[in-house]
Amino acid sequence: MNIVFLGAGNLAFHLAQALHKSGNRVVQIYSRTLKSAKYLANLLSCDATNDIQQVTQNADLYIIAVVDDAISYIADKINIENKNIVHTAGSISIDVLQGAKNYGVFYPLQTFSKNSHLNFSEIPICVEADNDNFRDILLKLANQISNSIWQITSYERQHLHLAAVFVCNFVNHIYSITENMMNEKNLDFKILKPLIQETVNKALTISPKLAQTGPAVRNDKKTMKNHSNLLISQPDLQKIYDMISQSINKFHNN
Amino acid sequence: MNIVFLGAGNLAFHLAQALHKSGNRVVQIYSRTLKSAKYLANLLSCDATNDIQQVTQNADLYIIAVVDDAISYIADKINIENKNIVHTAGSISIDVLQGAKNYGVFYPLQTFSKNSHLNFSEIPICVEADNDNFRDILLKLANQISNSIWQITSYERQHLHLAAVFVCNFVNHIYSITENMMNEKNLDFKILKPLIQETVNKALTISPKLAQTGPAVRNDKKTMKNHSNLLISQPDLQKIYDMISQSINKFHNN
Repeated sequence: MNIVFLGAGNLAFHLAQALHKSGNRVVQIYSRTLKSAKYLANLLSCDATNDIQQVTQNADLYIIAVVDDAISYIADKINIENKNIVHTAGSISIDVLQGAKNYGVFYPLQTFSKNSHLNFSEIPICVEADNDNFRDILLKLANQISNSIWQITSYERQHLHLAAVFVCNFVNHIYSITENMMNEKNLDFKILKPLIQETVNKALTISPKLAQTGPAVRNDKKTMKNHSNLLISQPDLQKIYDMISQSINKFHNN
Repeated sequence: MNIVFLGAGNLAFHLAQALHKSGNRVVQIYSRTLKSAKYLANLLSCDATNDIQQVTQNADLYIIAVVDDAISYIADKINIENKNIVHTAGSISIDVLQGAKNYGVFYPLQTFSKNSHLNFSEIPICVEADNDNFRDILLKLANQISNSIWQITSYERQHLHLAAVFVCNFVNHIYSITENMMNEKNLDFKILKPLIQETVNKALTISPKLAQTGPAVRNDKKTMKNHSNLLISQPDLQKIYDMISQSINKFHNN
């Protein structure tokens, strides 16, 4: 398949290379920032442009991988009527691409950064299309790069994206505020690394519900009060402590 | 060293075996529940008892590994005046063992469950003692089973334990509520596993602060509002969503 990428960010960076390696031909990278477009295009030996008017007209598939708010703008500018086009966003409906010849969503559910090596074959790809024929084409393409393919509607994808925010963005934020707490007491964050890894191992192998431990699940009020008092000078953290402890207690003991 | 374990729970289960393997002699396991004591004693070919009066009097070290509230009770009952004794609790001061010949804390920072295999050599052990000589004995013992030894005061340990609650108990709870959210929409929690693992990989290799992504850190109000609305029928989750999103925004954009 001849593919044009609209966007050259972290997701495009990984997805374009995976598709290239699996035998597809990425023919052009468009990005508002010419430097980004060129950087990725160089890796794939293809054309780069930052002029939306210069986007190739006859590719087999156009993959939009830009920030959510720019998707409809990009779609407007490239005359989608005669094109097969997908976007790659978790929280945007398939309908934003209405009017294209064939349209859909090709959403790899992962947190991408350029400097982290990822094994694409394990990344779940959520596929949706406006018709069965195009859906089969997208499923086939997804199968070339991943072993984890899911047919997910726009409605489901919204909820999936929300879930991803919890397990990725919120969990990472808990690590961030904990690292700060540790630094303030001159404690090395790295002491916590084996605990962090084992917590994930248990949640993924046993089940988070069964793996829950700590003062809140055993309703150990004394320890919770002590902990909350330790955070008295940081009311925002104290609120988070109290609220999540209450949530744990309610979840397990109601 | 001849060691008596007071307690036969998950921590005792792993620690006693690690000490046994490293050439120490666990001579007795006490537990309120004879069955638990016998189960662990059987693995170590040693004596088991559920009668606190039957605890051997002449061991080199007594390790208390019971729930926090029972530590002082156990210490009272075994005549600590002539004994070397430690507890293994994150949030309890060393002072609870005052009156012993030598006393201290031997706190392995990990979440233990009997059915999860752990490599003890990677588990951080936090050591504290009432005197330098006993501290050196405990450090030497810790070194026999782990490569990650830390001298941590009771004050620091309180904060460390609080930090552990955040990265272990709170993170696990976020997985639990997310699993529920997914189940309610008939979405398979396993779709999120590669994302969960990669989130941890990035936090541990880059740094959580630099790894933060998502709507809150880029102040994407539209997506946050949509997400919050998806949780309208679950006010507890909605509060968690709003509070952590605000916290992320403040942490990164203030």
